[in-house]
Amino acid sequence: MASEDRRRRATVNDVAIEAGVSRGTVSRVLNGKRYVSSEARSAIDAAIAKVGFVPNGAARSLVMQRSQAVGLIVHEPSSLFIEDPNIGSILLGANEALSEADYQMACLIADSSRDITRLSNYLSGGLIDGVIIVSAREGDAITRAVSRLDLPTAFVGHPRDIGNAAYVAIDNQTAAHAITRRLAETGRRRIGMIASALDRDSGADRLAGFTAALGNDFDPALVESVPLYSYRDGQEGMRALLQRAPDIDGVFASSDAVAAGALEVLHLAGRRVPEDIGIVGFDDSSWAMRCDPPLSTVQQPATSLGRAAAEAVLRQIRGEEPLQNAQMLECPIVWRNSA
Amino acid sequence: MASEDRRRRATVNDVAIEAGVSRGTVSRVLNGKRYVSSEARSAIDAAIAKVGFVPNGAARSLVMQRSQAVGLIVHEPSSLFIEDPNIGSILLGANEALSEADYQMACLIADSSRDITRLSNYLSGGLIDGVIIVSAREGDAITRAVSRLDLPTAFVGHPRDIGNAAYVAIDNQTAAHAITRRLAETGRRRIGMIASALDRDSGADRLAGFTAALGNDFDPALVESVPLYSYRDGQEGMRALLQRAPDIDGVFASSDAVAAGALEVLHLAGRRVPEDIGIVGFDDSSWAMRCDPPLSTVQQPATSLGRAAAEAVLRQIRGEEPLQNAQMLECPIVWRNSA
Repeated sequence: MASEDRRRRATVNDVAIEAGVSRGTVSRVLNGKRYVSSEARSAIDAAIAKVGFVPNGAARSLVMQRSQAVGLIVHEPSSLFIEDPNIGSILLGANEALSEADYQMACLIADSSRDITRLSNYLSGGLIDGVIIVSAREGDAITRAVSRLDLPTAFVGHPRDIGNAAYVAIDNQTAAHAITRRLAETGRRRIGMIASALDRDSGADRLAGFTAALGNDFDPALVESVPLYSYRDGQEGMRALLQRAPDIDGVFASSDAVAAGALEVLHLAGRRVPEDIGIVGFDDSSWAMRCDPPLSTVQQPATSLGRAAAEAVLRQIRGEEPLQNAQMLECPIVWRNSA
Repeated sequence: MASEDRRRRATVNDVAIEAGVSRGTVSRVLNGKRYVSSEARSAIDAAIAKVGFVPNGAARSLVMQRSQAVGLIVHEPSSLFIEDPNIGSILLGANEALSEADYQMACLIADSSRDITRLSNYLSGGLIDGVIIVSAREGDAITRAVSRLDLPTAFVGHPRDIGNAAYVAIDNQTAAHAITRRLAETGRRRIGMIASALDRDSGADRLAGFTAALGNDFDPALVESVPLYSYRDGQEGMRALLQRAPDIDGVFASSDAVAAGALEVLHLAGRRVPEDIGIVGFDDSSWAMRCDPPLSTVQQPATSLGRAAAEAVLRQIRGEEPLQNAQMLECPIVWRNSA
């Protein structure tokens, strides 16, 4: 498939000559316009098949102003793109909804700042018709690039600085409050938290819910902040808490992956779960059931978040009125055996 | 960001008027051509900034014949896209290499047959300059679509029917042979295999290596074939083997995820690993270290596979001679505690 071997592509001209019609007529058919006789239409269809014409997408998207593709940007360290089943489920939900509407999802990873510059060029390139943004931070360069471009956009999550852009989210603060209360009701006295991603609305809101739920019992020494919703950061956070507060008897881990890492450290330290210490997570992702014991956690509707964000973008692409600018989805508690 | 709000985009014309030059001169600068005075160039740069011009990518890619994007197609049930850390590592390796070359990777999932039709349209649309194909089967509709399009392409893996297209792979047969021999040398007498994805070159080759390694000791009743390299299929395969051959004392699981599922079933059945039964996997993915006991397995260089495939596509895009059409990477055995 070296470039020397490449044959000349058939053009609209070739089709027009073969069909015995004008180039304009071929264009009208290709672009789905009316006012073409059915005879001309059949002749053109036959000619397209005969000369092996493939519409040039760049030319086509110039005429149609459409690429029939929607980007999904994951702004995370690329390792997390793989490790976090939650991101995976958002992605699959979006892919389903886009696929049903006959749109191609193009998943784009933004990790380094170099990635972000290149991504901005890609987004401005007319190669996609809209974009779903997962896990943006406040002050995110991608948010700025997208708002400059005025591209149909929906966020999963709700960074404070996205103006009146569409978003789909859960109420992290209320959910964190509820599961912390539930943990306290099991009789725990020294409840800590492994707080992640405080630069993200989700991370900050979960900490706020935890703090509010404990009220006067809140002890800042029992909060350990780690950068990522990751297994490894869960391990580090738990080690730090055990060292600082050996009498800790309850932990709210800010995600299931974080909880899984924390559990591993508790096992190694010889602490029995839930007898000596109760632990709860957040997400109800595939981690939750693989943990031993299975996690009590908050069920995040990740697939539905992806689907709803895709639908919001599709409505904008079609020029339809948005159903509503902000959509908040339910996230019930699922109680199992880890607390 | 509703479509009514959208302001008119600045055009090449606006830039030309602002800079006091012809549209042709603006085009020459935008397309990186020479023969433009440095005064004109500075005036145009200033005008672009002033009118807020963003080059239209579709128009640009029509002129340049480039989108600066490469697709990576994963032809798998979408659930596996998330579950299989191997696919994730291939993806990250490719993303790194493309990013260094300033290409945007657009990851595309092909699950349903509807996805495949839409994907063929996308690929023919000039929206990407090349494509990396992961986990294609023989007779794959995507392989057919890509070869028709004559697009720069590299496969990860080696389906038999890809003609002389570039590919990057490991020698699955030799690796499976080696780890099966190693398992036999631990003194196992009744060695079975959970064989997955026999419609894929990797799956078929791993079974061939296993069969050859056992020679006269090969017993077809000890092979259970399952569709996917997945945890769930590993559970099902192990259940079937235990039922059919309760005296089984060694298992080659065709991937680490399959081995993890098999281990779970062995634990539940009260079989001690490695005392009662030895088990080996394939991939050395993140599953391997999370298993209890950690898996003896074949180290698949997934990141390097992704990187090498990306580099092969980039060479084709640039019209450079391929280094070699087929690249085979090393995959050593990593021996831990599961056998």
